[in-house]
Amino acid sequence: MTNTSMEAECKFRVSNVDETRACLERAGAVFLKVEEHRDTYLRHPCRDFRSTDEALRIREIDGQPFITYKGPRLAGPIKIRPEIELPLGSGTVEDWLQIWGHLGFAVALTVPKSREIYTLDRHARRVTITLDHVESLGYFAEIERIITNQEEIELAQQDIQEIGRLLSLSEVEPRSYLGLLLAKLGARQPE
Amino acid sequence: MTNTSMEAECKFRVSNVDETRACLERAGAVFLKVEEHRDTYLRHPCRDFRSTDEALRIREIDGQPFITYKGPRLAGPIKIRPEIELPLGSGTVEDWLQIWGHLGFAVALTVPKSREIYTLDRHARRVTITLDHVESLGYFAEIERIITNQEEIELAQQDIQEIGRLLSLSEVEPRSYLGLLLAKLGARQPE
Repeated sequence: MTNTSMEAECKFRVSNVDETRACLERAGAVFLKVEEHRDTYLRHPCRDFRSTDEALRIREIDGQPFITYKGPRLAGPIKIRPEIELPLGSGTVEDWLQIWGHLGFAVALTVPKSREIYTLDRHARRVTITLDHVESLGYFAEIERIITNQEEIELAQQDIQEIGRLLSLSEVEPRSYLGLLLAKLGARQPE
Repeated sequence: MTNTSMEAECKFRVSNVDETRACLERAGAVFLKVEEHRDTYLRHPCRDFRSTDEALRIREIDGQPFITYKGPRLAGPIKIRPEIELPLGSGTVEDWLQIWGHLGFAVALTVPKSREIYTLDRHARRVTITLDHVESLGYFAEIERIITNQEEIELAQQDIQEIGRLLSLSEVEPRSYLGLLLAKLGARQPE
């Protein structure tokens, strides 16, 4: 079995986080947990991930590391892209960064954030909603569904748009946190 | 702490494996175990590992996978090079090959071999001796020491040369198994 899946997601800016939390409660969303993330994005040695629309990331969730490859997005209003995520050994991030470094993958940026995770079932389909607080960027909500086949794409897009309205989220932010942070830092965005 | 270490090693062709086993016994080497290896070598997307003298390998030892990066060799008669090895999650090789593939790292070749592992203490220093049987290449002996600082390099070279004589090993094989197999296959060696 492979861990490749398709992830359909849409990110919104959150201007009032308490209001969004209240909307989540009213909509029947179930709070699962808070995670502390530390996402380290890598640059490819001979490919501009920004133009190929890929990402390679080491994510530490409460200290436990994972590697994630994200492939190019499909066309459409909702972000849909293949994703492969695998666990890394506990305490191996520095060593992995050394291997990636030797192979020419430099660290683009490290993004720390807090993530509140909720689930919501709509029409017998489960959606994950995360409320992220990103250092120096503020709050964002992501509505996300995992898709296992092509037929689900349209359904996922409908679900996500419907839930966005339900939660009074309207300001879609198409850029990644990496892209937003690099733009803020005034650097050229090498995602 | 980092898992980077320096590995000093010398590989010899073995014409008569029973004779080499008898030499190992006479020299007081201690047999540890036999491992079944499956080494998958990867090509870098924009760097010729053959000319940079690097290697990136997924090694499965009795089914348990590891990733290994080997850096360029130092000059000298004995092969000395930095090496970083990290465990991968059990059962994740196919997923890792997908990630590497997406990043442009193609599989160069997979090399299956059986490895008998021995240790030998000389002058209060421990040396590892492996007796490898590589499919379609035959038997080879490797004499290996891990070095933790520059001062040990000369000692390691002396130890390895002395033990080679002790075991009647004389035919040094400087090429990697990957290089030997690719040469045998008549392919250009893209190590």
